[in-house]
Amino acid sequence: MTDLTQLDTPCLVVDRARVAANAERLISRLAALGVPLRLHVKTAKSLEAVEAVVGPGRPPITVSTLREAEQFFDGGYRDILYAVGFTPDKQARAKKLIERGAQLTLLTDSIETARAISGFRVLIEIDTDGHRAGLKPESEKLIPLANALRQSGNTVAGVMTHAGGSYDARGDAALRAIAEQERAGAVRAATRLREAGFFGGAAQAPQPIVSVGSTPTAHFAERLDGVTEVRAGVFVFFDLVMAGIGVCKVEDIALSVLTTVNGHRPDKGWTLIDAGWMALSRDRGTARQPVDQGYGLVCDIDGRPYHDLIVVETSQEHGVISHRSGGRVPELPVGTRLRILPNHACATGAQHGGYNVVEGKQEVPARWERFGGW
Amino acid sequence: MTDLTQLDTPCLVVDRARVAANAERLISRLAALGVPLRLHVKTAKSLEAVEAVVGPGRPPITVSTLREAEQFFDGGYRDILYAVGFTPDKQARAKKLIERGAQLTLLTDSIETARAISGFRVLIEIDTDGHRAGLKPESEKLIPLANALRQSGNTVAGVMTHAGGSYDARGDAALRAIAEQERAGAVRAATRLREAGFFGGAAQAPQPIVSVGSTPTAHFAERLDGVTEVRAGVFVFFDLVMAGIGVCKVEDIALSVLTTVNGHRPDKGWTLIDAGWMALSRDRGTARQPVDQGYGLVCDIDGRPYHDLIVVETSQEHGVISHRSGGRVPELPVGTRLRILPNHACATGAQHGGYNVVEGKQEVPARWERFGGW
Repeated sequence: MTDLTQLDTPCLVVDRARVAANAERLISRLAALGVPLRLHVKTAKSLEAVEAVVGPGRPPITVSTLREAEQFFDGGYRDILYAVGFTPDKQARAKKLIERGAQLTLLTDSIETARAISGFRVLIEIDTDGHRAGLKPESEKLIPLANALRQSGNTVAGVMTHAGGSYDARGDAALRAIAEQERAGAVRAATRLREAGFFGGAAQAPQPIVSVGSTPTAHFAERLDGVTEVRAGVFVFFDLVMAGIGVCKVEDIALSVLTTVNGHRPDKGWTLIDAGWMALSRDRGTARQPVDQGYGLVCDIDGRPYHDLIVVETSQEHGVISHRSGGRVPELPVGTRLRILPNHACATGAQHGGYNVVEGKQEVPARWERFGGW
Repeated sequence: MTDLTQLDTPCLVVDRARVAANAERLISRLAALGVPLRLHVKTAKSLEAVEAVVGPGRPPITVSTLREAEQFFDGGYRDILYAVGFTPDKQARAKKLIERGAQLTLLTDSIETARAISGFRVLIEIDTDGHRAGLKPESEKLIPLANALRQSGNTVAGVMTHAGGSYDARGDAALRAIAEQERAGAVRAATRLREAGFFGGAAQAPQPIVSVGSTPTAHFAERLDGVTEVRAGVFVFFDLVMAGIGVCKVEDIALSVLTTVNGHRPDKGWTLIDAGWMALSRDRGTARQPVDQGYGLVCDIDGRPYHDLIVVETSQEHGVISHRSGGRVPELPVGTRLRILPNHACATGAQHGGYNVVEGKQEVPARWERFGGW
């Protein structure tokens, strides 16, 4: 069996035991709150990785691209929510997927889109934290948008919100508050639609979808009444941004980049590695957190963190490791293998074509392929 | 023929006429200085794109990964410089390429590597600006490193330096100064090696390689005496970082991401698009320049810039367009196609599987594939 000393570096490593533990933690939490997970597959983009989270069944999933929808449909998934504002030019491709048997649900907050598309199940995007798209729960545009969707021959299937602003929340109380704000806003918008006559007719969904979620709010919500599903994705692997928010511990992070030391600059306190931004991504999500992890936190080949060693600078295929506060860097001879924990699992994963799977040890019993593109 | 209104978005667009003009500009400039280009293919990672720069011949190239070396070897290239500090664990793969007929040249600044590898042509990496790897031209470690390489059975083929610090230089005088510093440092190191008896014996290269380069220094060097080749890559496409340094004009940038408007937030002055950091990359290289271009400068479908519109924020598959100083955003209805100029062509290109080729117009006469990975 291959092990981590034999792989070509840089490459992506995933710890299957940590994925299983991360999955169990969120799924059991949501079960206790009485709401199912609709896994967001944009983080993993891998049939094998997703199966490691949800099991051999083919439960409802969330996607961020039509390519993800197509790939997971081919893998047997049928109930697919495409959770990015739809554009009319994507209709033909979406229709093809529906004709093949997908129950595809689209998303919009735009009356222009509502008037231009026809024959789809659509959620209305609700903005509960001001960070991106969506109509406010009390928006005067909400009912006209739903009417426009119906008049064009679409089914208004419910509402969806994503409190991405939770990534900037700090502390349990703030996270619980934004989770409740996300829940309440989505439920309020759905209630307004119901009061306007939606979700009641025979041609409409009898039970509207009230879809909320982000990894932080999914882990901190105290109640989810009125919510029918929770979306989350990055919890599968977790990352330094999530650890910085307090959603996970560094020890929960399942994803890392395996790299090899290729030089030293003792005059500068630098150890150089063969993982640059191409392998780690340019994501600097911890830059605005209390602890800036640079381009990633350095671990040994077994995944044990050197807590003060980070990747302080990168170019395309070079990384520079240094002590975060100018302290001494341990001796790491040329050829030493290290693992770098990522700021943002979605971004780092996207730089690679697959996962080398480990389970605590250096042996690599499996490889999971991943896809990219649109 | 497909045109830009028919492509699935987001996707990468390259203007072939601009690539040709960018190539002609640098190649003729270097010809006037009497030094050939050794194109760095890490930016394009595409046989067709590289052929558009260097023509049908198979001149010497620079690579940043063994995957690039293998892919371009398979495309007919033979003289390949792998310009990232080599590690001993990569020997078997490098040897295989040499056995197949490649003239592969490696790079190191490490005496540990020098002692651990055997049978290779190697350049010694020289640090001329303090920004990354390499020995200083006057380093006391230079001759011992060369001796160690020779004693292990390698050929010391010359020296290489990369003045990546030129990316932070501002103004013609500063750029000319760093180009001269790069040249002088490399030539000085080569001279020291020659004086120590290298490049003279029959077993050694009769003429040492003195390899310098970065896109800024290649365009600003006033003399290149003693230099035998110049490496550059990003000039093929150029980007907003290069425009910010003053190496090119915005109108020279050949690469863009085609995207579609999918929503509006009139309360915030936002226009939303279907290109997020997955399509644009997380690179924020202009953040430290006088003009911060956010995640990219917005152009219409024909590539004409809206000079005050930039992508101010991104999530994975969402981009937020706004006026850079809070001014009015023009009406861009849902479905409008736009093109986003990248901060960093290498990083944005890496997010995509190929280039949709245009030539000033909306027609797409060709597609160039690109590869990734290691």
